[in-house]
Amino acid sequence: MTAPVARALAFDVFGTIVDWRSSIAREAEAAAARHGANVDGGAFADAWRRRYRPSMDRVLRGEVEWTPLERLNRASLDEVLAEFALEVLDERERDELNRAWRRLQPWPDSVAGLTRLRRQYVLCTLSNGGIALPVDLARFGGLPFDAILSTELCRTYKPDPRTYHMVASLLDLRPEQVMMVAAHTSDLRAAAAEGLRTAYVRRPREWGPGPSPEPAPDASFDVAADDLKDLARQLGA
Amino acid sequence: MTAPVARALAFDVFGTIVDWRSSIAREAEAAAARHGANVDGGAFADAWRRRYRPSMDRVLRGEVEWTPLERLNRASLDEVLAEFALEVLDERERDELNRAWRRLQPWPDSVAGLTRLRRQYVLCTLSNGGIALPVDLARFGGLPFDAILSTELCRTYKPDPRTYHMVASLLDLRPEQVMMVAAHTSDLRAAAAEGLRTAYVRRPREWGPGPSPEPAPDASFDVAADDLKDLARQLGA
Repeated sequence: MTAPVARALAFDVFGTIVDWRSSIAREAEAAAARHGANVDGGAFADAWRRRYRPSMDRVLRGEVEWTPLERLNRASLDEVLAEFALEVLDERERDELNRAWRRLQPWPDSVAGLTRLRRQYVLCTLSNGGIALPVDLARFGGLPFDAILSTELCRTYKPDPRTYHMVASLLDLRPEQVMMVAAHTSDLRAAAAEGLRTAYVRRPREWGPGPSPEPAPDASFDVAADDLKDLARQLGA
Repeated sequence: MTAPVARALAFDVFGTIVDWRSSIAREAEAAAARHGANVDGGAFADAWRRRYRPSMDRVLRGEVEWTPLERLNRASLDEVLAEFALEVLDERERDELNRAWRRLQPWPDSVAGLTRLRRQYVLCTLSNGGIALPVDLARFGGLPFDAILSTELCRTYKPDPRTYHMVASLLDLRPEQVMMVAAHTSDLRAAAAEGLRTAYVRRPREWGPGPSPEPAPDASFDVAADDLKDLARQLGA
């Protein structure tokens, strides 16, 4: 049995800590209802979220200059509203709906799991969602992080290798002393390539009741957990 | 009466939130005692702390490249140990004593005051002490910050104007929506020059029982408080 050398855990946020889909679905349905319209909130949330990776990839390819995620989301929202025939929402309502990403409910195990893990590990975020957004999410959900770190600090997005090294550097740790925790294998594979440890967290409902687009985790990850309480148990916290 | 437009409070840490002097004094005395030596811990702490500003100013003037504060402190420590005839401490002991800056006791009002303020404001640090150091201080002292921000993120030190603008930018706020909170008029004057609001906190014992080197606050600051509980009261939190 190897000693647990990780000193800090760096958490992906959207999908890993918070349930973006049901929160966004609820706010989209409420926004539509204020205009007497109906919308399938889950489908709306999925359509919005599906634009997330392509919008960041355009930045990573250099096709557009670095832009905070919230601004990318806001541009995507205009497209999604058109797709769902909800152009009736005015600018103020669109800005407000965009801020729903700052009010996402944590998964039921998140606060309890983080609280246990924090006794033994330094807990930070490594989010693509800027600094202000996860700060508000942490306040909204009562998430006990020690530090809010974001790819914004490098003006890039995951899986840019610099983002993982930044976490180790800012926490004054070596890469192998940091464990990336995520519900997404692509994030973990990129972290592992930079020397971080990895913990996969199963979030089968991230995309709702349908089949998950997430590939099954392979044996290369240091830990695979059913939720954050299970992760705490497996890490001895 | 003007409405309280500040949304976030950015705190200086050393001296404003934590009592560096008595903590460093105690650890220095203990380190000396392990070698059968006596040292005036308060005088030792003062001598070390007096090297803090000049060491950062050499970086700001470009005479040495940007260096995290903890490394500047470590170099200053060698000088202070020589001055106090404590060269007997070996490298490991010096590194350990240097880490005493991660274990500084909060002032008695700090946790209660921050806890009240946090209900109404986003609370962050703006420390010259890197990210890792205030992260450890917050864990050690149970300090409820929403975000740990540091001049390290700009690779500079206060009072570089960029550090104050960075806080507003990362929190997605305008400068006037951020209030700098410090026990040091120089920090506040620099923040005010960049459009931040300012709260002066009296810490007459920062440098121990002798007269404080801190000039009296003038009427230009938005608030002057006796401690963080008084600040919470004055800010309606």
